[in-house]
Amino acid sequence: MLRLSSPNNQRFSQSESFEACYGGSEANVAASLAKLGIPSSFVTRVPNNDLGEAALSTFNYYGVDTSASTIGGDRLGLYYLEKGVSSRPGKVIYDRDLSSFATIQPGMINWKKVFKNIQWFHWSGITPALNKTMPAVCLEALKVATEMGITISCDLNYRANLWQYNKKPNEVLPELLQYVDVLFGGKGDSELMLNIKIKEKDTQEKVFALWQKEFPRIKTIASTGRTEANASKCNWQGFVWQNKRLYASTQYHISHIVDRVGAGDAYSAGIIYGLLKNKNDLQKVVEFATAASCLKYSIVGDVNLATVNEVEQLMLGNAGDRIAR
Amino acid sequence: MLRLSSPNNQRFSQSESFEACYGGSEANVAASLAKLGIPSSFVTRVPNNDLGEAALSTFNYYGVDTSASTIGGDRLGLYYLEKGVSSRPGKVIYDRDLSSFATIQPGMINWKKVFKNIQWFHWSGITPALNKTMPAVCLEALKVATEMGITISCDLNYRANLWQYNKKPNEVLPELLQYVDVLFGGKGDSELMLNIKIKEKDTQEKVFALWQKEFPRIKTIASTGRTEANASKCNWQGFVWQNKRLYASTQYHISHIVDRVGAGDAYSAGIIYGLLKNKNDLQKVVEFATAASCLKYSIVGDVNLATVNEVEQLMLGNAGDRIAR
Amino acid sequence: MLRLSSPNNQRFSQSESFEACYGGSEANVAASLAKLGIPSSFVTRVPNNDLGEAALSTFNYYGVDTSASTIGGDRLGLYYLEKGVSSRPGKVIYDRDLSSFATIQPGMINWKKVFKNIQWFHWSGITPALNKTMPAVCLEALKVATEMGITISCDLNYRANLWQYNKKPNEVLPELLQYVDVLFGGKGDSELMLNIKIKEKDTQEKVFALWQKEFPRIKTIASTGRTEANASKCNWQGFVWQNKRLYASTQYHISHIVDRVGAGDAYSAGIIYGLLKNKNDLQKVVEFATAASCLKYSIVGDVNLATVNEVEQLMLGNAGDRIAR
Amino acid sequence: MLRLSSPNNQRFSQSESFEACYGGSEANVAASLAKLGIPSSFVTRVPNNDLGEAALSTFNYYGVDTSASTIGGDRLGLYYLEKGVSSRPGKVIYDRDLSSFATIQPGMINWKKVFKNIQWFHWSGITPALNKTMPAVCLEALKVATEMGITISCDLNYRANLWQYNKKPNEVLPELLQYVDVLFGGKGDSELMLNIKIKEKDTQEKVFALWQKEFPRIKTIASTGRTEANASKCNWQGFVWQNKRLYASTQYHISHIVDRVGAGDAYSAGIIYGLLKNKNDLQKVVEFATAASCLKYSIVGDVNLATVNEVEQLMLGNAGDRIAR
Amino acid sequence: MLRLSSPNNQRFSQSESFEACYGGSEANVAASLAKLGIPSSFVTRVPNNDLGEAALSTFNYYGVDTSASTIGGDRLGLYYLEKGVSSRPGKVIYDRDLSSFATIQPGMINWKKVFKNIQWFHWSGITPALNKTMPAVCLEALKVATEMGITISCDLNYRANLWQYNKKPNEVLPELLQYVDVLFGGKGDSELMLNIKIKEKDTQEKVFALWQKEFPRIKTIASTGRTEANASKCNWQGFVWQNKRLYASTQYHISHIVDRVGAGDAYSAGIIYGLLKNKNDLQKVVEFATAASCLKYSIVGDVNLATVNEVEQLMLGNAGDRIAR
Amino acid sequence: MLRLSSPNNQRFSQSESFEACYGGSEANVAASLAKLGIPSSFVTRVPNNDLGEAALSTFNYYGVDTSASTIGGDRLGLYYLEKGVSSRPGKVIYDRDLSSFATIQPGMINWKKVFKNIQWFHWSGITPALNKTMPAVCLEALKVATEMGITISCDLNYRANLWQYNKKPNEVLPELLQYVDVLFGGKGDSELMLNIKIKEKDTQEKVFALWQKEFPRIKTIASTGRTEANASKCNWQGFVWQNKRLYASTQYHISHIVDRVGAGDAYSAGIIYGLLKNKNDLQKVVEFATAASCLKYSIVGDVNLATVNEVEQLMLGNAGDRIAR
Repeated sequence: MLRLSSPNNQRFSQSESFEACYGGSEANVAASLAKLGIPSSFVTRVPNNDLGEAALSTFNYYGVDTSASTIGGDRLGLYYLEKGVSSRPGKVIYDRDLSSFATIQPGMINWKKVFKNIQWFHWSGITPALNKTMPAVCLEALKVATEMGITISCDLNYRANLWQYNKKPNEVLPELLQYVDVLFGGKGDSELMLNIKIKEKDTQEKVFALWQKEFPRIKTIASTGRTEANASKCNWQGFVWQNKRLYASTQYHISHIVDRVGAGDAYSAGIIYGLLKNKNDLQKVVEFATAASCLKYSIVGDVNLATVNEVEQLMLGNAGDRIAR
Repeated sequence: MLRLSSPNNQRFSQSESFEACYGGSEANVAASLAKLGIPSSFVTRVPNNDLGEAALSTFNYYGVDTSASTIGGDRLGLYYLEKGVSSRPGKVIYDRDLSSFATIQPGMINWKKVFKNIQWFHWSGITPALNKTMPAVCLEALKVATEMGITISCDLNYRANLWQYNKKPNEVLPELLQYVDVLFGGKGDSELMLNIKIKEKDTQEKVFALWQKEFPRIKTIASTGRTEANASKCNWQGFVWQNKRLYASTQYHISHIVDRVGAGDAYSAGIIYGLLKNKNDLQKVVEFATAASCLKYSIVGDVNLATVNEVEQLMLGNAGDRIAR
Repeated sequence: MLRLSSPNNQRFSQSESFEACYGGSEANVAASLAKLGIPSSFVTRVPNNDLGEAALSTFNYYGVDTSASTIGGDRLGLYYLEKGVSSRPGKVIYDRDLSSFATIQPGMINWKKVFKNIQWFHWSGITPALNKTMPAVCLEALKVATEMGITISCDLNYRANLWQYNKKPNEVLPELLQYVDVLFGGKGDSELMLNIKIKEKDTQEKVFALWQKEFPRIKTIASTGRTEANASKCNWQGFVWQNKRLYASTQYHISHIVDRVGAGDAYSAGIIYGLLKNKNDLQKVVEFATAASCLKYSIVGDVNLATVNEVEQLMLGNAGDRIAR
Repeated sequence: MLRLSSPNNQRFSQSESFEACYGGSEANVAASLAKLGIPSSFVTRVPNNDLGEAALSTFNYYGVDTSASTIGGDRLGLYYLEKGVSSRPGKVIYDRDLSSFATIQPGMINWKKVFKNIQWFHWSGITPALNKTMPAVCLEALKVATEMGITISCDLNYRANLWQYNKKPNEVLPELLQYVDVLFGGKGDSELMLNIKIKEKDTQEKVFALWQKEFPRIKTIASTGRTEANASKCNWQGFVWQNKRLYASTQYHISHIVDRVGAGDAYSAGIIYGLLKNKNDLQKVVEFATAASCLKYSIVGDVNLATVNEVEQLMLGNAGDRIAR
Repeated sequence: MLRLSSPNNQRFSQSESFEACYGGSEANVAASLAKLGIPSSFVTRVPNNDLGEAALSTFNYYGVDTSASTIGGDRLGLYYLEKGVSSRPGKVIYDRDLSSFATIQPGMINWKKVFKNIQWFHWSGITPALNKTMPAVCLEALKVATEMGITISCDLNYRANLWQYNKKPNEVLPELLQYVDVLFGGKGDSELMLNIKIKEKDTQEKVFALWQKEFPRIKTIASTGRTEANASKCNWQGFVWQNKRLYASTQYHISHIVDRVGAGDAYSAGIIYGLLKNKNDLQKVVEFATAASCLKYSIVGDVNLATVNEVEQLMLGNAGDRIAR
Repeated sequence: MLRLSSPNNQRFSQSESFEACYGGSEANVAASLAKLGIPSSFVTRVPNNDLGEAALSTFNYYGVDTSASTIGGDRLGLYYLEKGVSSRPGKVIYDRDLSSFATIQPGMINWKKVFKNIQWFHWSGITPALNKTMPAVCLEALKVATEMGITISCDLNYRANLWQYNKKPNEVLPELLQYVDVLFGGKGDSELMLNIKIKEKDTQEKVFALWQKEFPRIKTIASTGRTEANASKCNWQGFVWQNKRLYASTQYHISHIVDRVGAGDAYSAGIIYGLLKNKNDLQKVVEFATAASCLKYSIVGDVNLATVNEVEQLMLGNAGDRIAR
């Protein structure tokens, strides 16, 4: 997907140019993982033109294998981003209808081949939000992945401007969540996306336990919390729930935010990295993912370009107070 | 329509930003005329978002009245432009399916109101090329304009990448051309768009006479010729045919081309200006239009920002050899 | 007026280019109001060259009617702006002597025609500060507006680098303020501009009551307060006084300031909007204007491009913590 | 003087920024000479602000001694430049009235001190064109220089948009030209500036002989010729006349012009360099100056940054056909 | 290697920024071939820092396999490029001493592994020019490639600013050229690099026959000719010699050159492409390579981003005279 | 030294251009002092190419006399800077081996001539860190300066990535520090650079007294403290120790940092300025230097461009809360 963002804190109406980058929730997770040293692949569909080619090449630049992607369809999906700053919120205009990705049909991708030698499959709630065909595409992939014994994670990623096809998320997602081992979501998603009623005062622990009861394959739930936020600063904290226990990270005070898009994807990548590398130390898992996503706020574009060493330095408290020289 | 072009002679695959401007064949003609001091209006349909608003505001900046336009539909049409340079041709990727403009339906625009106090209506062959509904929209406007005694001009503007809806141009345009007084086109359009067979060796005079016979309302035909061209230079000449006579302009050698898009629209605006101001001196009409479009090659963006005085200076031979100071 | 500002936090001595925009206190108020949906016009005088034309076109882009402006004079006034950042204050070099605007003479503008169908006239204390002729130009306009029953507002807008013509503001303004219904100013202006002595410890209520006693036509006084400020952050609060009562807005903590110029004008526009739309709810008036001006701090250029909806979102506490997507 | 030019071939009405550089005819000659290794100084007057300081610092960067300049006055003179390209001429909007330089008064500069240890004084016809005071300032300097035995050169530099103070150039310049040893001008200046009538068909030799007769101190006259020019290309040739003989340089075909401003100043600097270094080989003098100015067309800004070695390479025919690597 | 070039036709002394790209003669050939659809790999050595990583990632972006490269050494080699324009030649400042690449030692690269499944090995005369160790590194590679039956091509690529280690090229290259099947070079290289004396008047045919006699493994020799050139234009023609016969391409007049660096590499890639695809039609081989390199002149950066289709369009005469839309 | 920094908060791997400026610890101090009105000179060695020339010209622009510098050697030293922002630290890649400066040899500079009419000599611990030759170069200069009665200051400036030549700083610096009157350093340098053991809990007073005992020529020690820092903000305070007494400045809370490089040099310049101007008021000395360096954080590039007036305004508490207009 092409992202076109107004430069230099301009509003859309002031922009005589747009900065261009290529991204998307799952692609961002793949690229973040590659940057953390985890071999990763990304499956998409792009049109047969220079922009489609550039999108794939960009992920090759990040070290992601895109060879399983297919070429076809009419257009590259895109969105316009007016970044927020100070007290002014960011703004997105989606223009992704009929994109090559959104016109993938069941049967179009050979998932058995895609998943060969693959250990982990990550998908996002944005995909089934696009149109009425996409849930079936997801389901097809989830079933093959399950058959092949692959760990599956899902980031619920609610987007109010999507889900425009007469199905509510909580009519669609529950079936798909039967196939998920690791879920990224928060209390606000419970009724909206999982169709599970909760009370305002319920703790995260309680909510996540309810979720796990409803979707027994889910073993791990990860969420983030943002408080005292405006467009340029926030307090940021990560949480991981497993075996009825909630692990909370250090809380970071983040200011001078450069680019907020992709912070959630950076967190997902951090959690996946942690579960692959430190699965028995969930505190370390949540600290790593939170520090990783914290760095994302300082990085231009969708993708977290932080390395393991940089994340670990931040975990040690080296929050940019010195130039490394 | 939004135009996104690669900056600094970059190819699409090299672009980390796109220059943005708003244009489109008819809009460009309207803006050029406004710049030449002719009050002009432009009717379009844009989505109800910041980009739609910016598109209209841009033409307000040029002095074009956009108050007759309607707001609605899902997206602003766009195209990506890789400008050519030296021996490398320019390249366009259209992305205008389902744009607000392309989803105008017959009955959606109150043409009687639009045409009130209007003297001239200009349209382009790009509009009926978009989809199977647009010819009916054109026809509706043409009939009302004809009833109201308005002069009508049409630029055939063949685009190979459009006309994708199972109708050939020559199945569609002849009906619409019944309503046209002034036609912009060239020999190559004869069979392709007008369904009139000609021979390779036929002169422009002969071809235009055939056209006039077939479409008797057409009084004036205007065309341009480009020879010895690459992406950065060409020889450029304009022609006007009326009453079986062809008027040819001075030929300009244009080099160091800055932006070729809109040169044809600048020529159309120049012809309309001339027919309004100097209708009895067709040599002056063709000289003015050719000089005007010649200046367009030096101007960034779709719109010819040349003034009458600047055009007339070029007609006098002042081709940039001195700084006006 | 042309504003030339150093880009990218550069100092004047580092700048190899200047960002250009067109503005001025009254023009900014007009454009902000247009953006808030209030039809507005702006009267100025610009030279007969491309820069004068661009200045007017820019306000057409914002939706302001500039058709009452006159063309003439020798030069477009300009100022150079070095934006402040962090602990470094912003800096202005004025270069507006003998500008077309500053050489307006009494009798040059047909105020009866300008004010036809106009409900509200806003002017600024910058105009009579320019030279000894301008107070008479103001007076002429004020008298006509008064005759025609138009509401008049004035922003005192003290600028130490102006008022260079051997008159002190408090020798000039009192006469003009006889014609004002709504005044924008603060305690610090009392002696300096209104020639009314106050004590340091006097409250705003007391000061404003004194002003109203001296200038009985004034019904409403609006002011802002900035504390704990450096060039990139401040606490920001608005006040409105009417009928001896002071209404204070929520206080905003603003950080990561993008462009401070025009925040006062945005506040004035917000107050005018409020008095037109919600005149019986002064608390809402002051909250709206303060939130509107708060958003201005995040916007590049002189003009507040915030919409009513965006202002109301901020009033609800949505201070940029989420991207609207 | 500050020059503000539209970037990227934009017209004034399209520019959201201006490129800034500092220059002026005499300053450009000084800087070109410094770059050619000739110690040079420049006398001007700039306002006591950051822009005045930056103007002087810029010439220090080029190696010019500015220590004799004075600080004072109200504003830095400026002009706006819309560079020409292709068939579109460049355009200048002057805004230099009441500049610090233009308000120099006789007696303000201590010319005896300025000219200490100075061998050559170069001035331009732009200076007496500014206002009615400047001819007296020029005369004062010319008399002191003459007393001190300094060689004096003058570039006539006619500018139609200056000379606005009710004196024609040919009423002013003849007195000043009594003090000139080396004159830069062309046939077109004869009546306009020197008040010497000539015929269209008169050769340069004949015209220059007439000049020399009228102004017997003039020993050397230098001129340039531009043919087949548009804004991006021309044929370019230099001429030097001395002792009734005309020396003509190689003619260069210059295309892909980057910046035409200052080409004449580069030529003047080249002639001065030549007369200082090779005074007995006038063919070499004219070849050097022509090649030097030819390179100026390829250089951004007012100042010719070519070195002696680069000029000599071009004289040998190495016109950019190979990269030096 | 990092290339830092002055932007916007600036000279080095004017540059406040440098455009950065990664390239080098052999890398450029590999990337051009990848763009033409030929799978290609590139072997180099880069330092273990972000710049080394970015250099490799860039070639991954172009589709080149860099997995055989090694990481180590102290610095990434770089050069500064001042692009020429108009009559001003381009200029290069090399800064590549002690680069990671230049400190490759014999034995450091496992050539047997590198060349596995490889059909063609291309190297350049720049490599042995770096320092006294590099010829041995080349020889090692050439011997292994020969053993493995790989076709070997060499571009002589004389650079006067290299070869600084007390060996002349013609003392070094003859040994290495024993292993070459396809040679890129021209008459001027004969004595300088091959140590074969020729006469000024000797034809290319004669010279190449002499070369082939001396180095019998050479089957094919390719060269280019540039005439009537300045920094922005030239006439350009390619030649291929095989079996004593010289095949000359169409001559192109190239103007408005965007970036000349890498034109030779584009030609080499075009020849290799042709010899792989059309080895029995040498006229087609030379036409393809010449058209390919012709397009390179229009492309920013070191690498020719032209596709086979674009090259073939130019061979058909479509030199940018129309926008593909 | 050339500094190449990634623009717009980009990481190295995202940069398609680098911002270029010239600086270096001692050069920055000289330029800051010049800006504060203190005549200053700078001695370095640069290569005989356009970059070396530009480096010197840049300091001429700042008003620093560079005429004592020498030309020679192979390359200009450089470093790449990825500026930190938010929680992400800045990063430096040094590439200064074998630079012209680093290859200065003892005897190459005529220090007697350099120091003529000089009152103060400032050097930095970066110089002896470069290679094993540089300590002798330093010693040579220090001895001459001492003989000539010049005050000597040294900024210890520890850089972990330098000192790569098998000597530890504390084996090298103690000899050199025998010649120092004013030392810039902090507790952390004590063992590392001065070879003086201290305890964690020792106060600055105690540590500095120990230093003074060991190096009796040292009269004044200055240091800075940074707390609660990330890459975009910190608390900043300066200290001066003299006659066993520590003077502490106001603590500034600095946010929205623009460029941190050179803040220490700005502090050094501020101290030197103060000791020259206000040597009997050490509180004023430390307040001035701290405020000066505080402003540096807001200024792009290495050099503090703050004037005495601007520093004094900040000392009065005018921290950018108002635009000076």
